[in-house]
Amino acid sequence: MTEHTPAAADITPEQRKPAIEPGVVDLLGVLAYGELAAFDRLSEDARGAPTLAGRAALSAMAGAEIGHYTKIERFLAERGIDVEDAMRPFIAHFDTWHASTAPRSWLESLVKAYVGDGFAADFYAQVAGWLDEPTRRLVLEVLADTGHSAFAEREVRAAIDRDRAVRDRLTLWGRRLLGEALTQAQYVVAERDGLAELIVAGAGDLAGIAALFRRLQQQHGKRMTALGLG
Amino acid sequence: MTEHTPAAADITPEQRKPAIEPGVVDLLGVLAYGELAAFDRLSEDARGAPTLAGRAALSAMAGAEIGHYTKIERFLAERGIDVEDAMRPFIAHFDTWHASTAPRSWLESLVKAYVGDGFAADFYAQVAGWLDEPTRRLVLEVLADTGHSAFAEREVRAAIDRDRAVRDRLTLWGRRLLGEALTQAQYVVAERDGLAELIVAGAGDLAGIAALFRRLQQQHGKRMTALGLG
Repeated sequence: MTEHTPAAADITPEQRKPAIEPGVVDLLGVLAYGELAAFDRLSEDARGAPTLAGRAALSAMAGAEIGHYTKIERFLAERGIDVEDAMRPFIAHFDTWHASTAPRSWLESLVKAYVGDGFAADFYAQVAGWLDEPTRRLVLEVLADTGHSAFAEREVRAAIDRDRAVRDRLTLWGRRLLGEALTQAQYVVAERDGLAELIVAGAGDLAGIAALFRRLQQQHGKRMTALGLG
Repeated sequence: MTEHTPAAADITPEQRKPAIEPGVVDLLGVLAYGELAAFDRLSEDARGAPTLAGRAALSAMAGAEIGHYTKIERFLAERGIDVEDAMRPFIAHFDTWHASTAPRSWLESLVKAYVGDGFAADFYAQVAGWLDEPTRRLVLEVLADTGHSAFAEREVRAAIDRDRAVRDRLTLWGRRLLGEALTQAQYVVAERDGLAELIVAGAGDLAGIAALFRRLQQQHGKRMTALGLG
């Protein structure tokens, strides 16, 4: 983050790395715009924090997302691809997801940040095994837990210990977040041939894809339990 | 940014560093809240970007600010001081400055980000010489140019080349930003004895303080020239 990231056009021939498949470009475009959109959402939600500590914590989460974005931007630039071109097909889906799941409270913000980051981490952990080595390293580095999730767990647990109705509302909220995420994910895969091929090839067949989605739902359930919900 | 920053209470006795003067705590509190407020402003302004590249650039600037904030938080925590306590006296002044200089356009956002960062860097470069070695190192590290200012220069220059009226409006805007910053800076110094002592001791006398403010104004002028304004 302390250095300026070059655009694809600024990369010299010596810095240029071997090209990557269209499906992988899509996957990184999804990841990049996911980080940029998460930055946007977290920085907005940080304003609603009830305490200065909460505001700083959510701002730091947002800062981590944009740090990841910068890494993906550089990785793509070194392969002759402009991050904007890679992200463009996915903007509308992410924006729709965020608009349809705008938090109405600080706790909803925290649950969304936690669940959204977790869902992305689970998904990319599943697909990482299908990727070439440099891309896999990038993905795993970008999705490493930044330690900020402990903050969300602590805050949410403290709030639901005090109020059972809050717990029930947040449980429903967590389910809705997952449902809307799966809906948008399915649209994305249906529209992008390269991405669909990558997933079919990786998962093996349609049963493999169904199993992938089942695992994502199970992991979401575990994550909700870690928050004291569900 | 990839690790969780401990609060002052989490620091073990072995990690504890020698205490720092109240004036230095104030100075770091100003710097920390300045970064947090800048994060807030930049992330908000990023939403108004006319292009995805502009949005990513301003988001990355915001990310750099919060990275700096995290460094100051840790530095203070290692000296037994909670960053929130250090920041609290300065929140109202910064918030007033930001509210009274809310950008009404993308170009105003860019000029404000550029001028605000520059003013802070100039001020801390002036006072760095009065600080103990570890604090000086922290301040210089936090205020190192992140390379993002080149983006603002490029965008602003391109816009004013196309339209002279835009240049005149942005020149006035730059002057207003400086005027409001100096007003708030004077309030802050007047209210905080430790900070006033540090500045008087560092500058030598009242004439030294006047010279400090004159240098800041000159550097602001140079910065405006670098943007093609003034």
